[in-house]
Amino acid sequence: MNCLLLPPDAFVDQLQSSNAHGQQFAQAIIANTAQIQHIKAVLGAKVGDSIKIAQQGGNLGSGVIRQLSEKTVILSDVVLDCPPPKKLDLTVILALPRPKVLRRLIMDMTALGVAQIILINSYRSEKSYWQSPLLSRLDEFVHDGLQQAGDTIAPTIRCKKRFKPFVEDELAQYLDGGIGLVAHPYSDQSFAEFIYSAAQPVSVPLPTLLCIGAEGGWIDYEVELLKNQGCHAVSMGDRILRTEAAVNVLVGQWLLHRQ
Amino acid sequence: MNCLLLPPDAFVDQLQSSNAHGQQFAQAIIANTAQIQHIKAVLGAKVGDSIKIAQQGGNLGSGVIRQLSEKTVILSDVVLDCPPPKKLDLTVILALPRPKVLRRLIMDMTALGVAQIILINSYRSEKSYWQSPLLSRLDEFVHDGLQQAGDTIAPTIRCKKRFKPFVEDELAQYLDGGIGLVAHPYSDQSFAEFIYSAAQPVSVPLPTLLCIGAEGGWIDYEVELLKNQGCHAVSMGDRILRTEAAVNVLVGQWLLHRQ
Repeated sequence: MNCLLLPPDAFVDQLQSSNAHGQQFAQAIIANTAQIQHIKAVLGAKVGDSIKIAQQGGNLGSGVIRQLSEKTVILSDVVLDCPPPKKLDLTVILALPRPKVLRRLIMDMTALGVAQIILINSYRSEKSYWQSPLLSRLDEFVHDGLQQAGDTIAPTIRCKKRFKPFVEDELAQYLDGGIGLVAHPYSDQSFAEFIYSAAQPVSVPLPTLLCIGAEGGWIDYEVELLKNQGCHAVSMGDRILRTEAAVNVLVGQWLLHRQ
Repeated sequence: MNCLLLPPDAFVDQLQSSNAHGQQFAQAIIANTAQIQHIKAVLGAKVGDSIKIAQQGGNLGSGVIRQLSEKTVILSDVVLDCPPPKKLDLTVILALPRPKVLRRLIMDMTALGVAQIILINSYRSEKSYWQSPLLSRLDEFVHDGLQQAGDTIAPTIRCKKRFKPFVEDELAQYLDGGIGLVAHPYSDQSFAEFIYSAAQPVSVPLPTLLCIGAEGGWIDYEVELLKNQGCHAVSMGDRILRTEAAVNVLVGQWLLHRQ
């Protein structure tokens, strides 16, 4: 948690001195037990200390602890004056992974700034994955990712349980004329060859859509369907990475090159 | 586990038909219970099936299951004909992380192909981390990473409990005239600006040394000592990532650009 992300109604009594550069409030109230625990156990903060906070969908800033109890922390001198970091212009289509790694994957993609996430069925996503109770906790994992990164804007997440109808009927609208990539270990073309084919790589528009398979990758049939919609298959080389590692390696390209 | 990595003495009765392109053995014997469990439960392999194996420090290949019991799997028709993937020309100096994330970090750096790993003390590495029993299990985590990636050559790992003497007296030999980077959130220069300052980025020599802090990053004093040895501080932008995510994002640059 690199900032405590609070809902809009946690902020009360907005001051008149607020302006376009920053909002000021008389108080903010923290009632989330995990956040209160973090303030006490990790930050070791006390009455009078300033802590980093943020407003869901709004700015980042700080507040000074006035009261600290088991169930509530009350802040004064609340200022929200720092806009959240920009999102990446990127939609990630991810084959539904094992529930065990779902939390970290959603958290990491959120922290990296992916704008849209689509969880999709694939041949190698087992049917039982769709029954996981963790799928009802995506908002919580997004919240964790935002607090990790110091962001306030949640990515949109959609679940698509049928691969073929999605790819054939809906994918085009997400591509929207941009470039789409499919990570595929057996592609002849490498990611670097595709991205750096021009002399000035940083100015080449990055693809806006990236499809990443579950463990074991996409099957050939899935890759063909994605290619039929205009996506380009690229490999990451001859090393096989955990899904989490692959997502960070690939999306990391957008993060580092956007700067 | 994308291949079962076996010790050299698991391979018996080398055949005369072995040559520079591949070694052949009459048998290989698997006695590791985790690997036997993987063959049965994950691969669901039976007598007569061919499975992917590799020799520690040697080649990758396959063998055919001849006997399958609780404690031993015996393979015949053993061929080792595929060299391991190349290592990255990269030394990572990592501030000793929380034990909880140590396994995945070692596993991921190994899978990515980092050639040398140096675990170093830092201001934000708590003293208790050095007492963790997990530090005696690094070889096991490396083994996991090699089996994940389909590699056979372990990276070298060194532990350095004193930051300043290491940086002042030993770092230069690891740099060896190459370029070193320090990941530092508060640097004015971004990773992309540093790497892509020339017109043909792929042909620019990549740095050969990368220093990554623990959660919370390096303190200014540590960054200054590293800069005094010629390292360049670069930022990854305005998002704060988990250590694991940061390692994969950064090292992923070497993985993708090496191709």
